[in-house]
Amino acid sequence: MRSVCVIGLGLIGGSVLRAAVGAGRTAWGATASEPDAEAAAASGFSVVALEDALRRAVAEDALVVVAVPLTAVDQVLRKVAEVAPECLLTDVVSVKTPVAEAVSRYAPTVRYAGGHPMAGTSSSGWSAGSAELFQGAAWVVTTDDDTDLAAWRAAADLALDCGAHVVPVSSGEHDAAVARISHLPHVLAAVLAACGADGGPLALSLAAGSFGDGTRVMGTRPELVLAMCEGNRAALLDAVDEALGRLGAARGALASTGALRATVQAGHEGRAALDARRGAKSIRVMVDLEDGDVLEELSLIGADGGRIVGFDGAMAIADVPNTASP
Amino acid sequence: MRSVCVIGLGLIGGSVLRAAVGAGRTAWGATASEPDAEAAAASGFSVVALEDALRRAVAEDALVVVAVPLTAVDQVLRKVAEVAPECLLTDVVSVKTPVAEAVSRYAPTVRYAGGHPMAGTSSSGWSAGSAELFQGAAWVVTTDDDTDLAAWRAAADLALDCGAHVVPVSSGEHDAAVARISHLPHVLAAVLAACGADGGPLALSLAAGSFGDGTRVMGTRPELVLAMCEGNRAALLDAVDEALGRLGAARGALASTGALRATVQAGHEGRAALDARRGAKSIRVMVDLEDGDVLEELSLIGADGGRIVGFDGAMAIADVPNTASP
Repeated sequence: MRSVCVIGLGLIGGSVLRAAVGAGRTAWGATASEPDAEAAAASGFSVVALEDALRRAVAEDALVVVAVPLTAVDQVLRKVAEVAPECLLTDVVSVKTPVAEAVSRYAPTVRYAGGHPMAGTSSSGWSAGSAELFQGAAWVVTTDDDTDLAAWRAAADLALDCGAHVVPVSSGEHDAAVARISHLPHVLAAVLAACGADGGPLALSLAAGSFGDGTRVMGTRPELVLAMCEGNRAALLDAVDEALGRLGAARGALASTGALRATVQAGHEGRAALDARRGAKSIRVMVDLEDGDVLEELSLIGADGGRIVGFDGAMAIADVPNTASP
Repeated sequence: MRSVCVIGLGLIGGSVLRAAVGAGRTAWGATASEPDAEAAAASGFSVVALEDALRRAVAEDALVVVAVPLTAVDQVLRKVAEVAPECLLTDVVSVKTPVAEAVSRYAPTVRYAGGHPMAGTSSSGWSAGSAELFQGAAWVVTTDDDTDLAAWRAAADLALDCGAHVVPVSSGEHDAAVARISHLPHVLAAVLAACGADGGPLALSLAAGSFGDGTRVMGTRPELVLAMCEGNRAALLDAVDEALGRLGAARGALASTGALRATVQAGHEGRAALDARRGAKSIRVMVDLEDGDVLEELSLIGADGGRIVGFDGAMAIADVPNTASP
């Protein structure tokens, strides 16, 4: 089992380190946060200086996992290029195109595949993490034209060891998708919470399920929401524009005829599609990782809502929703 | 204890009938729905024809509770005016101004106070109801200038017997508040669900907490959402316009500087206000229902986020959030 070097020991990085060790791997970490370093060391994990962590990664041909905020990625990559310029590298940042561009710029010789585990972000820091954070979660591992296959396999192996399943998808498709299902929900929740609070104590005293559910994610620290949403600016703009168009259409229909059927029907069908997806049966598919066009094959599986659930030698085992069955 | 005559035996009306009987009251119902009538009768409740139900209400000076959809209210009120023109009347429809106007038009001599229990609407029909539906819920009883005090007290007594607390508020303030905290959340959930589903199988396969929470109410039957939202057209238009303004401002900030701080900060504070309201300590206040300006006094309590939790003779016992305490 490949060793793992985790850079950044907050909620996600700290959970990766715990889960990797829990899976029986040799793993160590580095972090610029004193409290995270102390807490991790106190729990018995190996925490060293960044340069030492990367040197050891070279010595053991470890997978390096960048788990720092997007704003700190460039700085870490510069150090990677200096100390471990040909290492196997992945990351767990919530946007993928900006990280891929930073890798091309600052550490062009590393063997890289981007990653994004779709797991909780409402708390932060080492103490908020756990070895179980990724159990049953989707973990994106990117499949761009220049993705290194060895890095892809190493990142996917780690994701599976952490209890997640792997969704293979290009960086651009990932960013567009999470803009819709993660970043737009945060923006709309912010708008809703502000509109509700503008109604004063009476409105808040009448608030029940729909307002509580629709604003829950606004309990998250603003800094975390901002880092996530602002880091995906281009794709989020597209999603916000679509939402503005749909909300404007609802406004127009309500003002002119009083009818909201088109809006509500589309929303009902959208939610039904989510429930159907979650309840769908799967077809099992095998993908030969030694095929020439394997990255494209994997991308198609991700685009269809499929996921990699394991490996058998050089074959990836994928479950793809059977859209023909209910 | 005053007898109760419930017109309409769906989720809400059926639950009122059960809760009233559960509280030891004499209660009976009428409904135009054969399945609801059969199910209620099969459970041992007294279900009679509309005209017979109203005649008995006159004979027993019962409180008549109109629990039909907004679109059927006029028709029921015409029958009330014919058979029980001076009865004590309330309703449980989710908008209040349209019902108050219909009462003025079709049954101007009844003694009326509007009502709205803030309880679940995601299922419908007699079978979805229960005697416990209103436990701990807010139940608005309106305090307009022409509200009949005897009807207000009768409706409030029923709400308390059903396990709810009473929020006294004018019809207009009620409609504006629920537009913000109930109807706008449904419209935004519809917009979000449609934008997410437009992302195809990949987006839905990556959807986690924020999208699931933000679209949950779209599992509700479209007809119920439409009746609720379209019935509150004027107030909902104002709320949608505020949301459009806030979302447009977020779009502009994201496009120009890439910064979403104002949007996210306002959302975070709005959600914090909801949590603070829920955790706030209360001050107990007594309101003399024989005061000349009692309707105004009660309205102020509602506007401050307060609620009536009981009666002691002619005194209403109110809990008002202590905004000075955390």
